[in-house]
Amino acid sequence: MPNIQTMADAIRFLAINAILNAGEGHQGVPLGMAEIAATLYANHLRAAPKDPLWPDRDRVVLSNGHGSMLLYALLHLSGYDKVSLEALKSFRTLHSVCAGHPEIEQDAGIEITSGLLGQGIASAVGMAVAEERLAARFGRDLVDHRTWAFVGDGCLQEGMGQEAISLAGHLHLGRLTFLWDDNRITDDGETALSISEDIPARFRAAGWHVLVVDGHDIVAVDAAITAAKTDPRPSLIACRTTIARGIPRLQGQRGGHSAPLTSQDAEEARAARGWSHPAFYIPQEVYDDWHGAMDRGAQARTDWSTRLAVHPESEEFTRWMSGTLPDGWADALPGPCMEPRATIMSSGDVCDALADTLPETIVLCADLEAPTNHKRSRAAFTPENRSGSYLHCGVREHLMGAMAYGIAAHGGLRPVNVTYLAFADYERPAMRMAALMALPTTFVFSHDSIGAGSNGATHQPVETLASYRAMPGMRVFRPADTVETSEAWQIALETPDGPSMMALSRQDAVQVRRDTSKNLTRRGAYILAGSEQNRDVTLIATGTEVGLALHARKTLEALGIKTTVVSMPCWELFEVQPHSYRLQILGGAPRIAIEAALKFGWERWLRYSDRFIGMTGYGASARAPQLYQHFGITEEAIVAAAKEMAEQ
Amino acid sequence: MPNIQTMADAIRFLAINAILNAGEGHQGVPLGMAEIAATLYANHLRAAPKDPLWPDRDRVVLSNGHGSMLLYALLHLSGYDKVSLEALKSFRTLHSVCAGHPEIEQDAGIEITSGLLGQGIASAVGMAVAEERLAARFGRDLVDHRTWAFVGDGCLQEGMGQEAISLAGHLHLGRLTFLWDDNRITDDGETALSISEDIPARFRAAGWHVLVVDGHDIVAVDAAITAAKTDPRPSLIACRTTIARGIPRLQGQRGGHSAPLTSQDAEEARAARGWSHPAFYIPQEVYDDWHGAMDRGAQARTDWSTRLAVHPESEEFTRWMSGTLPDGWADALPGPCMEPRATIMSSGDVCDALADTLPETIVLCADLEAPTNHKRSRAAFTPENRSGSYLHCGVREHLMGAMAYGIAAHGGLRPVNVTYLAFADYERPAMRMAALMALPTTFVFSHDSIGAGSNGATHQPVETLASYRAMPGMRVFRPADTVETSEAWQIALETPDGPSMMALSRQDAVQVRRDTSKNLTRRGAYILAGSEQNRDVTLIATGTEVGLALHARKTLEALGIKTTVVSMPCWELFEVQPHSYRLQILGGAPRIAIEAALKFGWERWLRYSDRFIGMTGYGASARAPQLYQHFGITEEAIVAAAKEMAEQ
Repeated sequence: MPNIQTMADAIRFLAINAILNAGEGHQGVPLGMAEIAATLYANHLRAAPKDPLWPDRDRVVLSNGHGSMLLYALLHLSGYDKVSLEALKSFRTLHSVCAGHPEIEQDAGIEITSGLLGQGIASAVGMAVAEERLAARFGRDLVDHRTWAFVGDGCLQEGMGQEAISLAGHLHLGRLTFLWDDNRITDDGETALSISEDIPARFRAAGWHVLVVDGHDIVAVDAAITAAKTDPRPSLIACRTTIARGIPRLQGQRGGHSAPLTSQDAEEARAARGWSHPAFYIPQEVYDDWHGAMDRGAQARTDWSTRLAVHPESEEFTRWMSGTLPDGWADALPGPCMEPRATIMSSGDVCDALADTLPETIVLCADLEAPTNHKRSRAAFTPENRSGSYLHCGVREHLMGAMAYGIAAHGGLRPVNVTYLAFADYERPAMRMAALMALPTTFVFSHDSIGAGSNGATHQPVETLASYRAMPGMRVFRPADTVETSEAWQIALETPDGPSMMALSRQDAVQVRRDTSKNLTRRGAYILAGSEQNRDVTLIATGTEVGLALHARKTLEALGIKTTVVSMPCWELFEVQPHSYRLQILGGAPRIAIEAALKFGWERWLRYSDRFIGMTGYGASARAPQLYQHFGITEEAIVAAAKEMAEQ
Repeated sequence: MPNIQTMADAIRFLAINAILNAGEGHQGVPLGMAEIAATLYANHLRAAPKDPLWPDRDRVVLSNGHGSMLLYALLHLSGYDKVSLEALKSFRTLHSVCAGHPEIEQDAGIEITSGLLGQGIASAVGMAVAEERLAARFGRDLVDHRTWAFVGDGCLQEGMGQEAISLAGHLHLGRLTFLWDDNRITDDGETALSISEDIPARFRAAGWHVLVVDGHDIVAVDAAITAAKTDPRPSLIACRTTIARGIPRLQGQRGGHSAPLTSQDAEEARAARGWSHPAFYIPQEVYDDWHGAMDRGAQARTDWSTRLAVHPESEEFTRWMSGTLPDGWADALPGPCMEPRATIMSSGDVCDALADTLPETIVLCADLEAPTNHKRSRAAFTPENRSGSYLHCGVREHLMGAMAYGIAAHGGLRPVNVTYLAFADYERPAMRMAALMALPTTFVFSHDSIGAGSNGATHQPVETLASYRAMPGMRVFRPADTVETSEAWQIALETPDGPSMMALSRQDAVQVRRDTSKNLTRRGAYILAGSEQNRDVTLIATGTEVGLALHARKTLEALGIKTTVVSMPCWELFEVQPHSYRLQILGGAPRIAIEAALKFGWERWLRYSDRFIGMTGYGASARAPQLYQHFGITEEAIVAAAKEMAEQ
């Protein structure tokens, strides 16, 4: 039998040593949750530190990410090679695997970047969904793991955390367990300063299994985890804890959270806990207990490998888990369309075609099934049907975004997130996480401009494109028509190094492309009509405004003004083209950029004397055609500007 | 006694007529909540339609804003002149007061823009806080009103709605009542698709008073509202309703939400409800009932005016409500500081100085009291102390942002919102609402760059400045030092036409200004050092990088390179300066912009041959000085670039 109390104290002192060594850090969580974590690892967790990427491992999420030394101590003690003692000594320094907050590095055992409060538990819901969906497809022989999340008070105060509670309960995600560090202290002091909610009752209202225990009572924690594993509901283990337990000066105090530690604190802790070892020293018998606990996972992994080797679906399973696309998958992408069609509908066509071809796609939508039209032949993922590949997320965009990247981090599925572009702001922090972690996630947005119509300015994005073009690692597509929409999807799915988003129209878009022999969207921008060399004016447009530019071109050509139209569906892809290509496309002639959004950022592609036709502020409530007239985004305006510029 | 059922049907048919006339709209809410709304207005609401801006009026928020015709019908029937029959006939057309979703127009009775789901109830929490705070200051003789919010399922699914429930319960906001349209239908169909939560239990867990009634039973609704008014807790009246009640084809159905209406629907509704009147016709006796109900408010307003006239505090009350600054208030702003000081601390100095001078300021902070340091002499606003001007919001940024603009919309107080800049994304949708409504709200953010240090990339804004500079109506300040911070505060408080935000440093900022004779920040950018005419290079910087530019200038001048340093604390203010001023400041010499953020947007101020020294992607986990070195934002880099450019 392992000595769990000593295992816990090993966490405690590694945390104290590393924080003292770094000169800063948050001791509250690792010291307060040491017994909880040690019990989980000693008796329950199934992981294989020597094969950190084993697909059927339990997933562990540290949602209270400031307590990162809890995770690093756990990973070190259980034998993840990359989290060496040296790594712990480099805590919070440049290039260390032990960053201030956990940053995804799955081969070191860090499943996901914790991010700001709330992100962790929301992404954990995504992981638990992925597990169920994969188990439904491949069976429990191959997919049989759990998701454990360490949770602080802040995560539960955040709205996204509340969304996570609500949806996880609704979906009966029985393999999801939250270990709540109920220490009654936040950064400001007593939690009572800002919350007086009955948190167990709140979870019960959402259909959770709730257990309340003393978080330092190893037997009680162990029994609660055992109960959580057998209950069909998601479980909250509410662990009453003492923050920074073990440091006499700080335990149970506001300063327990992250007040600077002194060497005297370390000495007093050693005395208080009866820990006689020097800094960063862990006795071999303690390591033995930790490593012995990992035998459970190692054995499970061996058994699993044996099953996989003879499994009839092993090839397909491996394909899903590796994110490999099947040969010829792109043949399923719809070709050109002869009629005008809203690009959100063209995207729905793609998504529907992929339901069979890429069954690993899973669509998440925030209560906008009808107007976004991405469900179609897909069944809903429900407690009764885990094979469904369409998840009704409710009006919970922030959770949805985090679930999407959580699913991507879990591996095996390809998440597609669908809502209106106006709601992109609601999930922006989650989208930033996907970009920061470079996780392949596809964010599909409809109603991308004043084209949304008379729901009014609150529902009409004007600055949203710019705000995402400003976000590193996010590819922003605004395709012009059916063909460009298919091309954008192809790029998004073929590109594993980060997320893509698509800004799509509610209103019909003119078809501007027929030829699909080459994916022109890959280069970010290209000449759609007119000559490269011989031009009087260049019109650069995105999305629905490309059709407008083509119309204007007809008029201008009739007036003898040689007009070249550039479609620019993706700035990020255009930016990485060779300088010579960019010059070739943009040309030396006067330029007019046309986009039903703000100019902000367009200066990158325009010179001082060039023009921009678009929005200058918020939208208004009227039908789309009237709004285009009202805001002067019209063929007439383009023609007038082009004439003026060509004459100069 | 008014005939409340007929009053309700009047709402119903005005909604049907207006939606049919507009050709689109959402009938679900006005038809489903007609009895609830008519009961509230007939027997409880205290408002004065002939004086819509009466400060002591009850506030009504339509959080389920798609049901806008409910609000417009209410305003028309109760006699708000601006919501005429003609206005109802212009529903959803350009410039109509009856926009697709309610847009703030307080003299028409529209208290606040509804925005996307969840915003309304979150802003209502702010209004209820404002009421309590003002009542504590001026007494119930002058401040004695309530906040009523119509609430849909979507508002309660949104995380920000959950944050609102939690904090309103904690704060015992007994004058806040949610009227929940429990119609069990969302856009996707049955609410059971995405939620199976016991919503009354969830509210009870947060300390709310909960009543469950049949929303079409006028007697029951009336009794519930009466009970809500006497209970010291905030109240949820859970009204079981039938969506689109009255239209036989759609009532209780998914299509009830917003399926296009036909004239046959209108006919069938007329038959079903026994309503024999033509479109847009309301019998005089129905108007009489509605107008008669408003006598209660009119009388209350008259009595209130009488009390105000003799109230010893009438002048101060009127000053607060009008948003007028007291004479000489700016004298309290701290002057220059001799030592380096983090700009978040300088902002705290200002905020503390204003605690007495501008007692109408109220600071909201999301559990970051210590690191943002804006509490100081302020007492906390709590159930026991409504005079407090510091609100511990917990880790609930999105709610906090909406409360801030809700407080501003209520009037009487000046909200100041404080957290880290990394969390600005969490409240971005609320900040957009403040900008869209042009409400005077001050958003203060600390930890504005990689200067945040070793918490790592998730906590280090790099694209945030650009993303807010892209937002219309938001003034973004990044002051360099103590003086510029005071100047930014002065502008923010003197400017009633919209919100301001400040990006402030965690780390010490060099003091770059001594002379405070003129508020130079007002012009957005100005020459801090060096000559206007005679320059070889211009360094343009913001925030902490201004100090860096000044240091580089010393070195460059010693090398004989004539260097002008431009401090640019606010792009938006600079943009509205005359062209000649902008040219005068930026000059013709080569330019180097320096900002510890991405280049995105800076092209506006730079020519092709100019340089930018800043970030090119996300940050990392290390101490701030090391990160500045690592990312090459250093004096050496500036000097090297300037030398290169000056030599060309």
